Amino acid sequence: VSPPRAEPERGSAAAGLGEFGRIERFLRPLAARFPGALDLTDDAAVIAVPAGQELVMTTDAMVAGVHFLANDPPGDIAAKLLRVNLSDLAAKAADPLAYMLSMALPAALGDDWLEAFAAGLAADQERYGITLVGGDSVATPGPVALSVTALGLVPRGRAVLRRTARPDDRVFVTGTIGDAALGLDVVLGRLEVGDQAARQALVERLRRPEPRTALIPLLRRSAAAAIDVSDGLVADLGHIGETSGCAAVLHAAGVPLSAAARSTLAAHPELLNRVLTGGDDYEIVFTAPAEEAAQLRDEGARLGVPVSEIGHLCEGPAGAVRVEDAAGREMKLVGRGWTHF
Amino acid sequence: VSPPRAEPERGSAAAGLGEFGRIERFLRPLAARFPGALDLTDDAAVIAVPAGQELVMTTDAMVAGVHFLANDPPGDIAAKLLRVNLSDLAAKAADPLAYMLSMALPAALGDDWLEAFAAGLAADQERYGITLVGGDSVATPGPVALSVTALGLVPRGRAVLRRTARPDDRVFVTGTIGDAALGLDVVLGRLEVGDQAARQALVERLRRPEPRTALIPLLRRSAAAAIDVSDGLVADLGHIGETSGCAAVLHAAGVPLSAAARSTLAAHPELLNRVLTGGDDYEIVFTAPAEEAAQLRDEGARLGVPVSEIGHLCEGPAGAVRVEDAAGREMKLVGRGWTHF
Repeated sequence: VSPPRAEPERGSAAAGLGEFGRIERFLRPLAARFPGALDLTDDAAVIAVPAGQELVMTTDAMVAGVHFLANDPPGDIAAKLLRVNLSDLAAKAADPLAYMLSMALPAALGDDWLEAFAAGLAADQERYGITLVGGDSVATPGPVALSVTALGLVPRGRAVLRRTARPDDRVFVTGTIGDAALGLDVVLGRLEVGDQAARQALVERLRRPEPRTALIPLLRRSAAAAIDVSDGLVADLGHIGETSGCAAVLHAAGVPLSAAARSTLAAHPELLNRVLTGGDDYEIVFTAPAEEAAQLRDEGARLGVPVSEIGHLCEGPAGAVRVEDAAGREMKLVGRGWTHF
Repeated sequence: VSPPRAEPERGSAAAGLGEFGRIERFLRPLAARFPGALDLTDDAAVIAVPAGQELVMTTDAMVAGVHFLANDPPGDIAAKLLRVNLSDLAAKAADPLAYMLSMALPAALGDDWLEAFAAGLAADQERYGITLVGGDSVATPGPVALSVTALGLVPRGRAVLRRTARPDDRVFVTGTIGDAALGLDVVLGRLEVGDQAARQALVERLRRPEPRTALIPLLRRSAAAAIDVSDGLVADLGHIGETSGCAAVLHAAGVPLSAAARSTLAAHPELLNRVLTGGDDYEIVFTAPAEEAAQLRDEGARLGVPVSEIGHLCEGPAGAVRVEDAAGREMKLVGRGWTHF
């Protein structure tokens, strides 16, 4: 019944080239490198897992009007859809392997949309080493609804989970935090950023998150627990604590900021709240023993992805996160900003 | 970012219990038996594949107003969603293992809908031995859109594909054909079936297809090629021929019919077309050497699922299907029925 179907079906989104033509033309080439994808001409894909490895599997869905705008460039939509899944694989220290694509498409959507969408997938397949192996395509009277189930490989028992942090771990984060949330504020007209380069940098981070696949070996070696930052830094650090049975302290002043976020915060200090809780960062927050700190920082720098120490775990109510200022005073969220307790 | 999320997110369908409460209450119990599902509290699931086995993976999507009606019983929707995926696994001779669930839900959908939907999943998890291991749940301004990616296990190299039929194979089919298509005609008011039991039997086959997981060992041992019948018997047999590079002959009189379909066809002989091409049967059409025929029939009978020989493959244009009557004359589709050539 399955792979992006090689034949029209009841309820297929069969405009223009028709379902068969679209799959043949735009999607089949994406599966060419993976023999188990069977050229998308079978009911299913066959996935061999090398001895000593296991699979990490994640699903993320996106709907037009909720997670993206219907008239966003299809290549941007494709990139975000794949990258949010790749970010989950990276956070678990799993090497990208393959993905299934499920699409509910309005009949009015033209072939050109799917062509541009597939081109976006193709570019990221090259960039991140992942391959389409199957899926389904159906018609919908509603908005475009997309779902990807991505598979990664990890040596058996070496996936990095949320629940395995220890109360004396340090907390680290990759890259910079807050850009995507500020970028969303810019896109929604809630934030004016005078400098054009800064504005573009923030919006680009919203549209094209960068899954930290480059850090997979580092995480596999050093991380006790990890999660990717989608809900917001404070909430996602809280998820680690929640599942690991400990509390966390976050040093607000240690949170790494891009030049664009730094200049924006200088003009609007109350936006620290957005930075720490806005989400959509697709950076990785992880914990590791204190003695790893120097090596993590050095290796991140070598790989071109800053790794910053931003706090520590401790005994305490599971999932509680205490945010501290540079002087170690607790900061409390008040209105749209933080204040001292 | 992923498993049916254990926390509210931007764009979550957070009515009633809220996203967290719904997942905790209705979905987490479905994942309890599978340690790698991590209680749906992590970004991803971890799937170990036993030595000597490989995975078969399939995706099917369904949208309200296209594949089901918005007010259909949620348990029926759940059953159909899982079963169309299980049917793909069965056709590939893969034992059901686990599935990911992706849901786009309107905000207005109540907790009671998800509760009944989850109860439908739970019943079929028991029945078919498959377990929820993750997924995603997002809000949509449109209709309910659902997608399942199902995983099965098969000994390495033993998945039964479409492309591996041989031109001298016989063609077999499981169960009975045409019930779901006639059931759809009944539901849509296009067909009157006087006998109430017959009417119910046809509609039940539409609503609750029966994936032929019981025949997995038989298929693994005997089938050269297989596909599940979703597009229609003629089209799906054509897909085997298309990918295997041969033609097929289908004996219309040999196609197995239920008592309900038989009595309906007696009253409306022109509906033979619907039976042979209507689809949604979720039976398995497969090919095997002629010498297997007797054993296949016997073993099917023993397992309570008829296995009927309905034709053979031959040299000829890839994918061509010649439909013959009992006297071996070619039948041609004319209007809504078949006629002799």
